[in-house]
Formats: sequence, C-alpha cells, structure tokens
Amino acid sequence: MKLADLPTPCAVMDLDVVERNIDRMSTRAEELGVRLRPHVKTHKIPFIGRMQTPGSFKGITVSTLAEARTFAEAGFTDITWALPLPLHRLREVVDLGAHIDLGVLVDNADTAARLAESGERLRVWMKLDCGNHRAGVDPTDPASIDLARVLYDAKNLDFQGTIAHAGHSYSTRGDPERLQRIAEEERDLCVDFANRCESRGVAFPHVSIGSTPTCAVIDQLEGVTEIRPGNYVFFDLFQQGLGVCGLDDIALTVISSVLGQHQGRMVLDAGALALSKDPGHEDGSFGRVRSVEGQDLPIELKQLSQEHGLAQGHLPGLDRVRILPNHSCLVAAMHPRIYGVRGDEVVGSWIPARGW
Amino acid sequence: MKLADLPTPCAVMDLDVVERNIDRMSTRAEELGVRLRPHVKTHKIPFIGRMQTPGSFKGITVSTLAEARTFAEAGFTDITWALPLPLHRLREVVDLGAHIDLGVLVDNADTAARLAESGERLRVWMKLDCGNHRAGVDPTDPASIDLARVLYDAKNLDFQGTIAHAGHSYSTRGDPERLQRIAEEERDLCVDFANRCESRGVAFPHVSIGSTPTCAVIDQLEGVTEIRPGNYVFFDLFQQGLGVCGLDDIALTVISSVLGQHQGRMVLDAGALALSKDPGHEDGSFGRVRSVEGQDLPIELKQLSQEHGLAQGHLPGLDRVRILPNHSCLVAAMHPRIYGVRGDEVVGSWIPARGW
Repeated sequence: MKLADLPTPCAVMDLDVVERNIDRMSTRAEELGVRLRPHVKTHKIPFIGRMQTPGSFKGITVSTLAEARTFAEAGFTDITWALPLPLHRLREVVDLGAHIDLGVLVDNADTAARLAESGERLRVWMKLDCGNHRAGVDPTDPASIDLARVLYDAKNLDFQGTIAHAGHSYSTRGDPERLQRIAEEERDLCVDFANRCESRGVAFPHVSIGSTPTCAVIDQLEGVTEIRPGNYVFFDLFQQGLGVCGLDDIALTVISSVLGQHQGRMVLDAGALALSKDPGHEDGSFGRVRSVEGQDLPIELKQLSQEHGLAQGHLPGLDRVRILPNHSCLVAAMHPRIYGVRGDEVVGSWIPARGW
Repeated sequence: MKLADLPTPCAVMDLDVVERNIDRMSTRAEELGVRLRPHVKTHKIPFIGRMQTPGSFKGITVSTLAEARTFAEAGFTDITWALPLPLHRLREVVDLGAHIDLGVLVDNADTAARLAESGERLRVWMKLDCGNHRAGVDPTDPASIDLARVLYDAKNLDFQGTIAHAGHSYSTRGDPERLQRIAEEERDLCVDFANRCESRGVAFPHVSIGSTPTCAVIDQLEGVTEIRPGNYVFFDLFQQGLGVCGLDDIALTVISSVLGQHQGRMVLDAGALALSKDPGHEDGSFGRVRSVEGQDLPIELKQLSQEHGLAQGHLPGLDRVRILPNHSCLVAAMHPRIYGVRGDEVVGSWIPARGW
C-alpha cells in the first residue's frame, strides 16, 4: 500500500526518521554514561518501545497503568509508572507488580506511610521537584530527606532513588541559555539531594532525570544513572521551536484531505481529534502544512473544530496535505492506529495503548 | 458500583441530566415544527442516540464514517455524514449506503460532477455557508444555484436539499443579540436560497440547519424542515458561557484524583488526554473544579500536560474532584469508555465510536 492510498485523516510515522532519532538518543545516553529508560507515552506502541531498547537494559517509562499493562503483555519486565501513585490504584499496581518490576512514584508523606504500612512488596521512586513545580517534593526542604528515609527504611519497599522531570524546559523558546541552565539544575538538584541523603545513611541506587529538551543539551551527567526522554522518537513543532530538532527530524505527521476551497480558505478533514488543540508555541497555528511529499506549502492552519481544519490558502487541484503537528504525543494518543511508512510505502500499522 | 469506586481519570455522564437535556430539545423541535436529526458526534454512543430519537423519525447526523458504521451496525438507518465528501471515500459511502440511507454533503462543482458521473445511487445534501466561513457554498453566488441544479438533475442522486451549520454562533459570548442575529441569518439565508432555487425549478425537499446555540434561541423556523444540534446532550462550559445552559445542565464531567498538594498547588491525574486542551472561552482555565458531590471548590485548573493537571488551590485531605469540561465533544471522544450514573450509582458504561 502506498501513502497516497491511506484513508484520511491518518497519522503516519516515518520509520527511517524514527530509527535515526532513536539511534541518536541511544548514542547520547551511552556517551553520557547513563542508562536510557525511554518514556513510551509518546507512541504507546510496544513495537517502537522495542526499537528504543535494543541493549541489555530494557527498562521503560509509562504514563498510565494501561500502558504498563500493554507493554507488560508485550514482554517488557522493567517499567516505571511516572505519575505520583494514586492510592486507589495500589491493588492494580500490586497485581501487575507480581509479574514484572513495576516502579511507582511517591511525593508525599501520606502515601509513603500507607505504602510502608501496606506490607506489599513494591518498587518505589521518590519524585523530586527540580523547578518544574508540578509534582514532586522540594529538594531544599529538610522534610524531603525524612521522606526518603521512610521509603528507604521500609522493609517491604525496594527503594530505587530519586526521579525528576524538568518540564519547565518546554518554556525556553528563544532562550537556549535558560534551557541549558534548567538542564544543569535538573541534574545538580537531584545529584546534590542524593548526596545529602547518602551522607545521612539513605542510599540512592539511582538518580533518574530527563526530558527530551534537557537530554538534548546536557553535556555531563556525573552522579545521574538514568535518563527518561520520550518525545525524541517523533519530535514535533514544539521541540523544533526549542531548537532541539530540525523540521526533518519530525517523524510523526498527519495526512489530511482537502475537502474544499472557497474564497482563499481551505477546509481539511484533520480537525481537533486528528491534531489535538495543543497550541504549541501559541503562534496561532495548529501545524505546519506541507505537500504529501514534504514541500512546504503557503497554507496557514489557524482553526480547528472537531473534524474540520480551516486553513488560509488557495491551491487549486490540491487534494491532500501532510501536517507536522505541534505536539506529537497528543496526536499519537488520539489515533486508533498509526501507520508506519518508509518513503511512500506503507509497511505496517500499529495500535497504541489507550485509556488509563 | 458507586461513583467513588471508579478508577480515575474517568468520564461520567449523569443520565438524569442527559434525559432532561434530550427532552427539552425534543420538545423544542416539536414546538418549532421541525424534525430533529441530532448530531451524535458529541457522544458517539448508539445507546444515547436511541434516547435522542424516540419518535418516528430516527435520523441522525455523524461526523465520521466510523460513527456511521457504528450506528448503522446498531440499527440506525437514516444517517447524514456532515462533512463535505472526500472523493477517495466514495467507495466506502456506496458500500454503506447499500444498507442504509446515508446522506453526504457536497459543496463544490468538482465533487458534484464526479458524483453525477459515477452513476452511483447516492443521497446528497448541498452544503451552504451561512456566515460561518468554514465549508459550504456562498448562497449569494449565482453559481450556487447552478450547483444545486447539477445535484437535482442527476438521475442517480437523491437530492435532499440544503444543509448549513452556524458554527460562528460559538463566538458570541457576552453578546446574546449577536447570537440571536446569527440564528435568524442561518434560517433566512437557507430558506431564501431554497426559495430562489425552487422558483427556478430546483425543488428542495429539506432545509436543514442548526447548532446547539442557534437552536436554543431561535423562536420561529418557517421554511426549515430539520435541525441538527449535537452538544445539547451533554452541554459544557462553552455553552454555559454563551448562556445556552446552566452549570447544572452539564451532564458530562471528568472525575480526577488529587495526586498530591505542594505549596498551594495541586496535581490531578486528569491531564490533556482526559480533558482535551480546548481552551474554551480562553479564560485560562481547563474546567471548573467541584467536589464529587457537585459543590464548587476554590481550585483553578490552569495547566495541563499529557497526564497531569496542575491546579492552584490547597484543600488538605481532598482526594477526588469532579471537573466540568470546556468542550464535552472532545472529552467524550478521548475516553475509551463513558460511565453512566444516576446520583452516585454507576448504572453502566458505554464505548464511543472512534477514528474515521
């Protein structure tokens, strides 16, 4: 089957580009002397997860228990669920954890106490806030060392160390120095915290950090043992805007039909459910519109409703376009099937895990 | 099962509210003297589609062929696919149309000519632009009457008439007079166009209009035969902001766990894949946060990443919240399962159609 034969809208991953992106990040992890535990939320497809983990360490990171189950079913045995554990899902974690090594995140004393009391054998990571101010404990707060000790001391808990994610690296467009600074802080805050804990007798087997942007720019990771980038498999316009990849490194695109052209506007069948309403860098565009062959077109995609894309532009005879997305993770998650291509040849399709 | 037992994040529809919303719109259509062909894209669930079509007319509107197939499989036999037909999907339309009455939309001369030449027996609607400036032909353009004639004259085409959707009614927040004007224009432009065509010998069996906001405010529909609102089943904060419904009419909500609270912020497990990144009225909020029982809480949900919601607020001991969404159609489409509740009792769950 050829690319031109696919029904639209559809999501397509260029496997040559995927492989190149994977090779680069794997080489980077090797050079930095850390293991790579890729975050598979970007694609949710075991086939891609296997491409990302060819070496001896097969660990991955997931964003949902649904992903954990899908990847466990596909043979993955070392999985970190990178969300602070909601206690009502503990039973599910214990059940899945009976078959694989399933790590969970803790970032508060209540959960730590409940897990320690539960007597359940659990692999736990302590989530640290390295400036992102989403989840995680404050590494400068003395209570954080107490929390680490609770996890370390509990006989039923297999304490892995600390885990952090510098999501605020995504707000550094046009400021590469700030991105560099955030990457260094992510590393330094985690390593320093681990050292302070260790000097108080709380041993940290691992220090795990990483977002695609910080992993792309950091040049030295002494004290860190693991990185967890995810988006690098596909990249997207957001990463490109940060300077982390080029346009031709974007492996995931959406093919759309042109449904009609009227008075300088163009209606596409890729709408909010095919592209997501992620505003990317908020420049008012929901993607970069190219020909199916990859040439930029003078078309601006400025408005999305559920199943319509409304673009500005007029190119008589144009019946299909290819759209580079703002945020590939959301796009991939919304498609029931992702087609894999090499050049214009469709070589297969894969079904991402879904739900929670 | 109780609401409090559902794993989070999850989407929940209050069936008492759904029924009330459905009753109101059905009564409205009856009073206005038009048939109601509800747009099922809001929920994509045949069970709800049947609740919406209890009378003798069982017609529905869909946004994708995937919805059309799902609803045809469930017994619906009169379906309009409300997207200008992409010609590469004609074969699928013909196949499905062999089993049910499947109407398609045409808004350009190329497609009209191709359908007429195809010889295939097809039910067609002519899509009119009533000021929304997305798809559709200009009713003031004389060429539009020629297009109607092509569709009317073709022996293989079963011409249904004209169809329009005043999507620009969604931009009338704070301006109820403009909403009223748009609703009247939607009606007047379509009826006037149909009359002009009929005076030239092109008979229009139907004039179909409607969005939830315009159907809510219009008080007279002479010349119109059909309305196609969709969102009214669930409503959402967007509709509430337009004054079209109250907060307690919003039937679809998302239940989220509180994963942790740190320094005035709260991390939820409802992120972009549970709530969509639809900005709603762009007031910077991704939903209205309530207790599971429905009391407003002093929590502002200002940031979403893939699986995290980041809110401002601090309520020690809070472990679950209920979120009224900005845009219920996108929320429902992203959940693999929608739970139905009556009060705090879970009475079932349904799987929405998916893909294209």
